[in-house]
Amino acid sequence: MTLAETGAGLQIRSIIKKEGILELSIVSVATPEPQADEVIVRIEASPLNPSDLGLLFGGADMTQARSSGAADHTVVTAPVAPPVLAAMAGRLDQSLPVGNEGAGVVIRAGASPAAQALLGKTVAVLGGSMYSEYRCIKAAQCLVLPAGTTPAEGASCFVNPLTALGMVETMRLEGHTALVHTAAASNLGQMLNKLCIKDGVALVNVVRKQEQADILTAAGATHVCNSSSPTFVSDLTDALVATGATLAFDATGGGRLGGQILAAMEVAANKTAKEYSRYGSTTHKQLYIYGGLDRSPTEFNRNFGMAWGIGGWLLTPFLQKVGFEGAQALRERVAAEIKTTFASTYTREVSLCEALQLDAIAVYGKQATGEKYLINPSKK
Amino acid sequence: MTLAETGAGLQIRSIIKKEGILELSIVSVATPEPQADEVIVRIEASPLNPSDLGLLFGGADMTQARSSGAADHTVVTAPVAPPVLAAMAGRLDQSLPVGNEGAGVVIRAGASPAAQALLGKTVAVLGGSMYSEYRCIKAAQCLVLPAGTTPAEGASCFVNPLTALGMVETMRLEGHTALVHTAAASNLGQMLNKLCIKDGVALVNVVRKQEQADILTAAGATHVCNSSSPTFVSDLTDALVATGATLAFDATGGGRLGGQILAAMEVAANKTAKEYSRYGSTTHKQLYIYGGLDRSPTEFNRNFGMAWGIGGWLLTPFLQKVGFEGAQALRERVAAEIKTTFASTYTREVSLCEALQLDAIAVYGKQATGEKYLINPSKK
Repeated sequence: MTLAETGAGLQIRSIIKKEGILELSIVSVATPEPQADEVIVRIEASPLNPSDLGLLFGGADMTQARSSGAADHTVVTAPVAPPVLAAMAGRLDQSLPVGNEGAGVVIRAGASPAAQALLGKTVAVLGGSMYSEYRCIKAAQCLVLPAGTTPAEGASCFVNPLTALGMVETMRLEGHTALVHTAAASNLGQMLNKLCIKDGVALVNVVRKQEQADILTAAGATHVCNSSSPTFVSDLTDALVATGATLAFDATGGGRLGGQILAAMEVAANKTAKEYSRYGSTTHKQLYIYGGLDRSPTEFNRNFGMAWGIGGWLLTPFLQKVGFEGAQALRERVAAEIKTTFASTYTREVSLCEALQLDAIAVYGKQATGEKYLINPSKK
Repeated sequence: MTLAETGAGLQIRSIIKKEGILELSIVSVATPEPQADEVIVRIEASPLNPSDLGLLFGGADMTQARSSGAADHTVVTAPVAPPVLAAMAGRLDQSLPVGNEGAGVVIRAGASPAAQALLGKTVAVLGGSMYSEYRCIKAAQCLVLPAGTTPAEGASCFVNPLTALGMVETMRLEGHTALVHTAAASNLGQMLNKLCIKDGVALVNVVRKQEQADILTAAGATHVCNSSSPTFVSDLTDALVATGATLAFDATGGGRLGGQILAAMEVAANKTAKEYSRYGSTTHKQLYIYGGLDRSPTEFNRNFGMAWGIGGWLLTPFLQKVGFEGAQALRERVAAEIKTTFASTYTREVSLCEALQLDAIAVYGKQATGEKYLINPSKK
């Protein structure tokens, strides 16, 4: 058994100072000695997910970001507007590590058999602080990847795959039979499309550009509706009639799209209604908002009867709801299909230092379709 | 046993013609022979609830209403704007009876013992077509009022009392411990205030005028917040901290009030939070929209974390959820407390014909606090 010497490792930190300045930097932290049930993972791949960017940038105006220093001493600063600063009260002046998930190789292990069994294995991990060279974590939190899987291939085993599975599972748990998804050409959206095709779940993909529609159609999607098209509302209604979808997951959050979807569901439901109901259809229509790509206010006209709900949706409470066993079954499915159904693609692999370059931030910070970056903290 | 001779009776009808014209009139309909399990109720009191006005006016512009004919031949017409007309597609050219609930005396009964037992009794009934002289209805649907209760006192036994009870029961079923209610000085709001005081449930009453606040304070309300006050948001937040309310019932529907309530709940929840959570408080905050007094779009900023829901709320699905036994227990409580907790007050009692006079419509159609009318179809 060879124990690697880690000493200290670098990690990205994000801090918002009470004066209204975001500061991103790279710090060196001592690698702890693993407890009996813990291991040290050398992180080699960690995606820049939208959920990471929220913590990383903290609502700062990154178009005004400035950079100083070089290499591991790079420091990026950007202003945080006063209303955003008020919402960040809970994290002011705290230097926070970032990175929800990643994958790498177990290079040290505590004394327990479970930890020892992981030595040398390539594992995927979820738990924060993944934009780090070394991450100490409980052995039980490691998902062993199938032999022949690289850390880059296993970097996104949790957030997007479990969210896609969580959407389909929520559909079943709440008695719906088909889904609507917005921002459907995103990395997550393309994954959900593959999953629904594989599992035979009807999915209505909503995008806002023709090239996004083309991506999904090429990937085998049956129902793709472009919200920029003049025929969007009737296209959407037709797709809802065809699929019977009464549940939508919306990544945009702001604007009128969510309300349009609920209204189209109501029209679709009433096409099969037998008599006038003054309160609209009795079919329950549900919209879950799980992202905020559109930061404008959410607006709707309540033109969808009284049997409807809108709510926030997050992965963690969903996993708590299905319990450890249920969640473990989902995780094992992800590992088994990580190179097919749950495969992610990235535009570029960057080191910790490269992730803090302004030109890189300008690209991955846009959260645009097909511009997803992967951090490799072990890359020099 | 005296069987009254009813022959035919008058009733109010509402029709929307496909040309975009609402027409209200009074028609004479034959009174059916009751089946074994049915009775004929001579309706003597039926309230004009907001939920009745929706069916009665069908979204027509009543400020442009015209009247022709006189007495029982009165006909009121009003234009229906094209977008509203589209939403009314399901009821076009159908002559609909109106009136959800009412009370009166059982004057004929079918052969069954249950029906016969009701002869001569004063009963409250729910089921539509109550703006009628005579209503044929199943004996099982009649709620016998305590001796000494007049039809006027028992006219509103269902919609408002069961809605108030349904709000408190929903609070318990969904794990909340206190309530917020908007349009809190309405007939329903005052009833909810009495109910919550009696049952020891903390209630935050939201009104939009000082005189409405005064009504509730005089009725013993502890927490009254005036949305027109410059200190509204902080008053509301203080009341939410004091009560721990995480469930709101909103009668207004449109505008920003619902979102303001959820945001204030989030601020209240975070006052007790121990550490920064990037997704906001994990306390679930729920808003149910059960009315549409404000017809403008609903708008909110999602500044209340991810643990929230907004939905439509209607009495009928709630009663279905609690089942017949549960609903019957609520109905019996209403009958027992109809002169106290669930007492309603009315500005004026009108006949069927008086209800169709333009000056009356102008008053009760406003749905303003303290302007509630009662129809007595037996009044000549």
